[in-house]
Amino acid sequence: MKTETVKVEVELQETIHKSAIKEKTDPGELQDKVASGRVVVVKNRKHQVEPLAIGEGLRTKVNANLGTSPERVDLDLELKKTETSIKYGADTIMDLSTGGDLKQIRREIIKNSNVPIGTVPIYEVICQLAKRRKTIADMESDQLFEVIEDHLEDGVDFLTVHCGVTRAALPILESYPRLTGVVSRGGSVLVRWMKHTGGENPLYEQYDRLLELAKRYDAVLSLGDGLRPGSLADATDNAQVHELTVLGELVKRAKKAGVQVMVEGPGHIPLQEVEANVLLEKKLCDGAPFYVLGPLVTDCAAGYDHISGAIGGAIAAAAGADFLCYVTPAEHLSLPDVEDVRQGVIASVIAAHAGDIAKGVSGAIDRDNLMSKARKNFDWETAFECAFDSEYARMRRGELHNHEKKCSMCGEFCAMREEIEFTTITD
Amino acid sequence: MKTETVKVEVELQETIHKSAIKEKTDPGELQDKVASGRVVVVKNRKHQVEPLAIGEGLRTKVNANLGTSPERVDLDLELKKTETSIKYGADTIMDLSTGGDLKQIRREIIKNSNVPIGTVPIYEVICQLAKRRKTIADMESDQLFEVIEDHLEDGVDFLTVHCGVTRAALPILESYPRLTGVVSRGGSVLVRWMKHTGGENPLYEQYDRLLELAKRYDAVLSLGDGLRPGSLADATDNAQVHELTVLGELVKRAKKAGVQVMVEGPGHIPLQEVEANVLLEKKLCDGAPFYVLGPLVTDCAAGYDHISGAIGGAIAAAAGADFLCYVTPAEHLSLPDVEDVRQGVIASVIAAHAGDIAKGVSGAIDRDNLMSKARKNFDWETAFECAFDSEYARMRRGELHNHEKKCSMCGEFCAMREEIEFTTITD
Repeated sequence: MKTETVKVEVELQETIHKSAIKEKTDPGELQDKVASGRVVVVKNRKHQVEPLAIGEGLRTKVNANLGTSPERVDLDLELKKTETSIKYGADTIMDLSTGGDLKQIRREIIKNSNVPIGTVPIYEVICQLAKRRKTIADMESDQLFEVIEDHLEDGVDFLTVHCGVTRAALPILESYPRLTGVVSRGGSVLVRWMKHTGGENPLYEQYDRLLELAKRYDAVLSLGDGLRPGSLADATDNAQVHELTVLGELVKRAKKAGVQVMVEGPGHIPLQEVEANVLLEKKLCDGAPFYVLGPLVTDCAAGYDHISGAIGGAIAAAAGADFLCYVTPAEHLSLPDVEDVRQGVIASVIAAHAGDIAKGVSGAIDRDNLMSKARKNFDWETAFECAFDSEYARMRRGELHNHEKKCSMCGEFCAMREEIEFTTITD
Repeated sequence: MKTETVKVEVELQETIHKSAIKEKTDPGELQDKVASGRVVVVKNRKHQVEPLAIGEGLRTKVNANLGTSPERVDLDLELKKTETSIKYGADTIMDLSTGGDLKQIRREIIKNSNVPIGTVPIYEVICQLAKRRKTIADMESDQLFEVIEDHLEDGVDFLTVHCGVTRAALPILESYPRLTGVVSRGGSVLVRWMKHTGGENPLYEQYDRLLELAKRYDAVLSLGDGLRPGSLADATDNAQVHELTVLGELVKRAKKAGVQVMVEGPGHIPLQEVEANVLLEKKLCDGAPFYVLGPLVTDCAAGYDHISGAIGGAIAAAAGADFLCYVTPAEHLSLPDVEDVRQGVIASVIAAHAGDIAKGVSGAIDRDNLMSKARKNFDWETAFECAFDSEYARMRRGELHNHEKKCSMCGEFCAMREEIEFTTITD
């Protein structure tokens, strides 16, 4: 057992060193941050993948969710989404499948990607229950832990586990009624389970068992926010903040056990509360990396929630959030298709980059300066290369114009021209 | 002359009263704000249009730019863009045409819209010069003022006039070199004109003449930011701040003359400087309404600048900006087509709304609460109505699902269900 622990640590050290080079940061500093839990390095020891460092001072990372539903099981489509996500800049993929052969789908996504993979094991548990014609109340803790181990054995690098939704939350949800109740799928399953069985959340009650499993695979636990607000009206409310305090305790226990953790965050948050939410997480969770979903700054952007999420995500990243879960235009309406995935990833990449410039991530502004210099010099090719989506920028500009010292927007009247003469105007 | 002034004032009072009702605010309070210049009411007395109030405490407004270029003159297309802008929530339209019969295009856009219209008269001046085979140095102040009067006579409600780009700025631009120089078209024309002729900007030198014209038509002057930064690197620099101080003086002179003014703002601004830019404008320009272009929080989002602009716009609006000029996905690449216009308007509407919630605009959050209540109740029809683009949301959701107590995202596993049973799962 002693040898095992040391071996893991040596592996982690190598991983940190690789990450430091990639992040252009000092390996010693990064190691200190990992040791103090302010940075996690994501990589299951069973997964052959480049390790990914997430946390304080580093580039803000972007996650893309994908996966089947009972109503749409199409592995090729999910693999196409995986490919598209990575192409446009997603740093990780979460497989949230709930339809078809979940194990096969998960393994194929892992096999066909070169980024760390996350899952929400409780989704597989409810799928098993549904298939066996059982109810949520029939869920057993052994079943849950078996699924978790199964995911880890398959090489899943980070797991969303809603450990902070406890019995203590139930009276709080009663005392402070919400407009939209509990909107996290995992959180909602656990709340219903606790209400019907009278038991405590097994992910909380048997947290040490979970830590042991995570430790064995060097996996990162992503402490889910099962009580995140599903509307601006419910943002930063008692239930949400209560859960965050529980997650703070669990962060400390994980560190003590040598397990890397990050903390998930909302959700629907009005713009003026986003910064406070980041501050709260950093304070209550001892600086653990903060992984936010959006946040969405209005409830009314159905069909365009990637834009609402980019606004919230950029502000969150600027305030110190470390990891943005993308939101696609399909959010609240449908499962995303490939184009939604593309739009969602790009919106989050823009948000993360804007946040990185704001929080002073080393080198983040270089890309913008290169782009602007290219613009000034009418060097369209370099400008396209600096764009987050070079292909689309090139296409929209039109190949015909690429070598002209003007663009089709302003033509002859380009402000960047130095001349006072007009040469090609016709009437 | 005395009678004339009184008549105008009575008209303005009626206009304020109408606006107060529309904005759900107190008419007396609104009148005070107009009197102190913190709110403008946009409506040329020659234009049959609903007056639009813009400024402190009011809903953040959205402008859509459109217009021809020498390379693409298609009136029907511009009218289609006008219609689309208004349909998706633009509060005003700016006709920035530089190709074809500018007078006819302007008149048709005014005729075919029911919102206030803005223009940048200097664009017409440079088109005239180009047609006459002249250079920028040949521009004469009388020509400029004749065009301005022409626009006002056609009923243009607000005019962008780059009065703050003065000879005093030239040495500042020399002393503090910029990455992207002067990127405002109007600003760039005036800088080149001043350099070549040695003269002072006529819009500054003959500012009283401009005030007299604006006053005669009750038009609003939108003091353009000819020295706005065209890259993050140039943001909040000496030239930009210098121009803002000049605009501050001009705001005071306009108020003294009884002319309504707003101030235009950038541009390309890193996220962490957006709030300071709003503060600066409000301080230096005596609380005049602030009309921002974006701002774009990264230079690298070519093809997706509407998202970059929505991030900056939301933060600006939250901080007190009053009027957002949209940015479309075509920005920096091409002239926008109808779909770009749609995307640009919706992105800005989302940004404005998120900002309104943040700055506490009365009633702004009601729409979100109604949406969220509808979501909780699986009342899809109300939810679609609350969406900024009901049509698209309805389409994406798919007509088949509208009456089901679940959506195609989570299906049976919807967190909003209270039940613990699964009923329709198949495997």
